[in-house]
Amino acid sequence: MVKYLISHKNPDTDAICSSIVYSELLSEKGIENKAIKLGNINNETAFILSKFNFKEPQTTTSLEDGSEVILMDHNEAKQSINNIENLIISQIIDHHKFAIQTGNPLFIRAEPIGSTCSIVAKLFEENKIELTKELASLLVSGIISDTLYFRSPTTTNEDKEIVQRLNKIAQIDDLEAYSLEMFNAKSDLGDIDVEELIKLDYKVFEFAGKNYGIGVMETTSPQYGLDRKDEIIPKLKEIKSKDNLEGIFFSIIDILNEKNTTMFADESDKELLVKIFDAKVEDNLADLGNIVSRKKQVVPQFEKHLA
Amino acid sequence: MVKYLISHKNPDTDAICSSIVYSELLSEKGIENKAIKLGNINNETAFILSKFNFKEPQTTTSLEDGSEVILMDHNEAKQSINNIENLIISQIIDHHKFAIQTGNPLFIRAEPIGSTCSIVAKLFEENKIELTKELASLLVSGIISDTLYFRSPTTTNEDKEIVQRLNKIAQIDDLEAYSLEMFNAKSDLGDIDVEELIKLDYKVFEFAGKNYGIGVMETTSPQYGLDRKDEIIPKLKEIKSKDNLEGIFFSIIDILNEKNTTMFADESDKELLVKIFDAKVEDNLADLGNIVSRKKQVVPQFEKHLA
Repeated sequence: MVKYLISHKNPDTDAICSSIVYSELLSEKGIENKAIKLGNINNETAFILSKFNFKEPQTTTSLEDGSEVILMDHNEAKQSINNIENLIISQIIDHHKFAIQTGNPLFIRAEPIGSTCSIVAKLFEENKIELTKELASLLVSGIISDTLYFRSPTTTNEDKEIVQRLNKIAQIDDLEAYSLEMFNAKSDLGDIDVEELIKLDYKVFEFAGKNYGIGVMETTSPQYGLDRKDEIIPKLKEIKSKDNLEGIFFSIIDILNEKNTTMFADESDKELLVKIFDAKVEDNLADLGNIVSRKKQVVPQFEKHLA
Repeated sequence: MVKYLISHKNPDTDAICSSIVYSELLSEKGIENKAIKLGNINNETAFILSKFNFKEPQTTTSLEDGSEVILMDHNEAKQSINNIENLIISQIIDHHKFAIQTGNPLFIRAEPIGSTCSIVAKLFEENKIELTKELASLLVSGIISDTLYFRSPTTTNEDKEIVQRLNKIAQIDDLEAYSLEMFNAKSDLGDIDVEELIKLDYKVFEFAGKNYGIGVMETTSPQYGLDRKDEIIPKLKEIKSKDNLEGIFFSIIDILNEKNTTMFADESDKELLVKIFDAKVEDNLADLGNIVSRKKQVVPQFEKHLA
């Protein structure tokens, strides 16, 4: 039976690159598989796939009940395909916190490491399967993207060592310059629809039985997001009500200056930010200082305060 | 901070051997750690530890809140230390189905393979750390025990290949003869207290929000268990009521003939066995045919029928 590799809703570069490359490892092992995605890729990912000549995985938002899936870069049902409860999870490759329940034993490879692409790189090494220049380039890109070129506190020494080893194959001349190209591609949003902007990198988390939406815009042009505040805040209110959320937040992360400015829907969201992060709020913008990682800095704090 | 390796309540040979050996890998990597156990070891494990000159891990049933733990051979809170919700899970090495929730990313290594000792053997190979003859012997013992010397349907080809590689170091002359020594040691229960007998290899599972206790006696002397039926059944009733269980079962697994005879507390438990396994019941003994694996054959069927 074909195994479908699926990454999380609103996929980011790490999710897409790790899926494409891990799919190759499975094929090398003779395992029939297909990488799919649950939504549109962002401009950074599009830039990378085009640069190294890869096609994007097909968008598929429903699979037949009983299908076998491999969860890439996520494990929580809320972030996965809608009928996940009726699918067979045969593998999980991920670097996030865990909240899963399975009926059967399965293969899980999880590490507290900067990116899922780092784990996939290790799996190639352990299985002694060689990466092509192009596949190695995708993995380097995924690691740079998820660690914000090693700026994020989720970065480990191992991520840096893996990029060094991978780049012997990928041979990208100037990694820092390449990272800027990637981040600029990501930041070039044109006249993107406001809901798409919020949902570009958006996840729903459950804390103490209630749902919270947290969107993140990692950018080299924070002013772009700030300038659209008067569209963003009403849309946050609308999503909060429509999706029955207890809270909703949209963080603009200035990658180069490592600065977090967060928008919210209403007074109760604002109070939460003040309580949890001791945030200073002015003009409906919460200053969250140098907190740049949703995974390592934002979500664990929510969990701690709301549990 | 010292990391505590804990295995499940009512630990079996795989749980204890994988804990002791993985503890050595962590020490080799400079990680301060201590293997502990949550209850008494069985006679098979005692035989193995004595044969290869290992001390049993200290029994510790409570750890200070906030302690860091590594879950060996289990992941479900119900099977773990009582205050698990207040501990930090930093790693999980396991081969069972999953039901976990963590606040932070962590290291997980899980595979649908015959024993946790097989995974630990792979971790030594991947980390290029050599096993001593004694540590390799513990891993061989754990794999033989959990796969019933390759009889259980949980056995994979990889388990067999790993035992071959390990035995180049362990140099156990006749593996089949050794497996019989192990199983006979396990079966030699003397006048063990009836509750201890039921709890020797006993786990509580949650199906559709209700708790079920399933004890297993793997033995080369099934008659021993059958002869104590008149003590066992009243004790099952007692545990069912005391622990507020929806069902309780005690399976006598004849290892050599691969045969399962299961005792139960009352009519409702009996009906469940008939419904799920189409069991023939005579004299309060349910014939479950050649179903020998709780993990692969019993629990998934319960899950499927009760979900």
